[in-house]
Amino acid sequence: MRTIDWVDGAVEIIDQTVLPTAERHLRLSTVDELVAAIQRLAVRGAPALGVAGAFGVALAAQCHGADSAAVADAVRRVAHARPTAVNLARGVARAAARLAEGADAVLAEALAVRDEEVAASLAMAARGADLVTEVCPMAVPRLLTHCNTGGLAAVVGGTALGVVAELHRRGRLGGVIASETRPLLQGARLTAWELGRLGIPYRVAVDGAGPFLMARGEVDAVILGADRVCGNGDVVNKVGTYAHALGAARAGIPFVVVAPESTVDTGTACGSDVDIEDRGPAEVLSFGGTGTAPAGAGAANPAFDVTPADLVTAIVTDRRVIRADRGDRP
Amino acid sequence: MRTIDWVDGAVEIIDQTVLPTAERHLRLSTVDELVAAIQRLAVRGAPALGVAGAFGVALAAQCHGADSAAVADAVRRVAHARPTAVNLARGVARAAARLAEGADAVLAEALAVRDEEVAASLAMAARGADLVTEVCPMAVPRLLTHCNTGGLAAVVGGTALGVVAELHRRGRLGGVIASETRPLLQGARLTAWELGRLGIPYRVAVDGAGPFLMARGEVDAVILGADRVCGNGDVVNKVGTYAHALGAARAGIPFVVVAPESTVDTGTACGSDVDIEDRGPAEVLSFGGTGTAPAGAGAANPAFDVTPADLVTAIVTDRRVIRADRGDRP
Repeated sequence: MRTIDWVDGAVEIIDQTVLPTAERHLRLSTVDELVAAIQRLAVRGAPALGVAGAFGVALAAQCHGADSAAVADAVRRVAHARPTAVNLARGVARAAARLAEGADAVLAEALAVRDEEVAASLAMAARGADLVTEVCPMAVPRLLTHCNTGGLAAVVGGTALGVVAELHRRGRLGGVIASETRPLLQGARLTAWELGRLGIPYRVAVDGAGPFLMARGEVDAVILGADRVCGNGDVVNKVGTYAHALGAARAGIPFVVVAPESTVDTGTACGSDVDIEDRGPAEVLSFGGTGTAPAGAGAANPAFDVTPADLVTAIVTDRRVIRADRGDRP
Repeated sequence: MRTIDWVDGAVEIIDQTVLPTAERHLRLSTVDELVAAIQRLAVRGAPALGVAGAFGVALAAQCHGADSAAVADAVRRVAHARPTAVNLARGVARAAARLAEGADAVLAEALAVRDEEVAASLAMAARGADLVTEVCPMAVPRLLTHCNTGGLAAVVGGTALGVVAELHRRGRLGGVIASETRPLLQGARLTAWELGRLGIPYRVAVDGAGPFLMARGEVDAVILGADRVCGNGDVVNKVGTYAHALGAARAGIPFVVVAPESTVDTGTACGSDVDIEDRGPAEVLSFGGTGTAPAGAGAANPAFDVTPADLVTAIVTDRRVIRADRGDRP
């Protein structure tokens, strides 16, 4: 089962907005449908967004091939569907570079982006599991993860959750705490669902509890993904990541980031240079159609945050381990 | 309007589980009803729990006055309804010390506990507002608060939110961020409701966003309450408090705790000596009545956490300011 794929001339995805209640597959045949799916987070996760971006260009070339202005407009809309994860714009750029060669060439490039993300997941799982075993002295470390970084965030496998799965396969995992990840609950909904399917023991915790669970000695390391890794090693990831990094630093436990090279953006100097998506008040002020706050309430809703490099132990990519704690930088 | 009061031989409370959707008042005539209300958080907040504890003994004396074994059993059940806030056991102990003098003496003591909490709220508001103005150099500081510390947590006024209201009255407040406070959303539901009624501009944020909003310069100080202040200055408060304290320390902004002397427990040496209530998985695994995680999911649900004294700038009580940042201890 792939989170996102190209099937018979259209993009097929698992609709992540309805998991775990329902397992629904969507077929997206137009750029408009794809952009809408990206913006409402039906497809999400940095690696998956890279593939979605490339497939979006393939859809544009297929639908508007003869009309270069229409193609250019469609490509722009895909690239700007969401701002923070670097993978989306990169996936678009790679596929768009082949537009002059025709729709078949664009699709071939998009499929290559997909295949490279699949390969990257495998490589990260092995390298990340080695790293966790190296930085955690105990035989079966108990890990805390935030948001969703499994197959649902990639094509298959995943980033941080791929490492968790590999540790489980090796018999080197002592359980997982999945931070629920408000406002959209990717941890409680998606990570819990994936962990359950993998047969990995887990508990869900509210986001505010993570640092205390670390202080109380219930967590041996934090492992999570990234939406953009900056040139100085700052990590931009789902809001709540930074608070967990502060907790890990205070508890003296490793804080490990797992992300493919396609997420490493040395062209962006540091976290404060990144456009942090603000998704508006509605997600914070309601859940499942039920309002949580009084009518008229406002909300602050940054979808991501910035974890300074000095709080990061290591960044594991599909090609290397960046030991930020030893001063390595991307 | 009082959150909790004694009216014509029974305890009357505002049911905090249904706010802000509904404003429902409950009349509790028996110890069983009161204990149930405490356990399901229909009445909550350290100062309000102290009053509830004292009123519980008054109910016990009124219902079982002639049967000292029944009274003792009822008193024990009230005292152990929840473990973490010291006020509950203290309110019970104060009223129970008058049992030998009869039900009228018990009630008089319980009413004195109530009146002292009302007076304490007023004293904290003034002293806390002075302190915030002293530690924040800007004219109108923007504050972040967690959980609910307003009139709903006390009898009237409140602790930290009483200070916020006083700053607003003085024209010395630049707005409030109310942390939603998962799992039970006391921030989004109760603090937002109180701030709206006070006419104070506010935004709700998810708990994981607080430290990042501080890092981004959107918060000038954190102000919140406590369920127990330990002898060494450790602060036990609603889960999520510690993460906010880490964020404040990293951002270099004041972290101010407001709590009455009835919450200061020098008999407990430090935070690790406090019984942290675990409220079970259901609250974490649902949201506004809707399930969030897959069937069979487990959860970690510590209702409180411990903030070490070195992360605290000051503790404001109704009688003093403990400058923890200068090494003062309770």
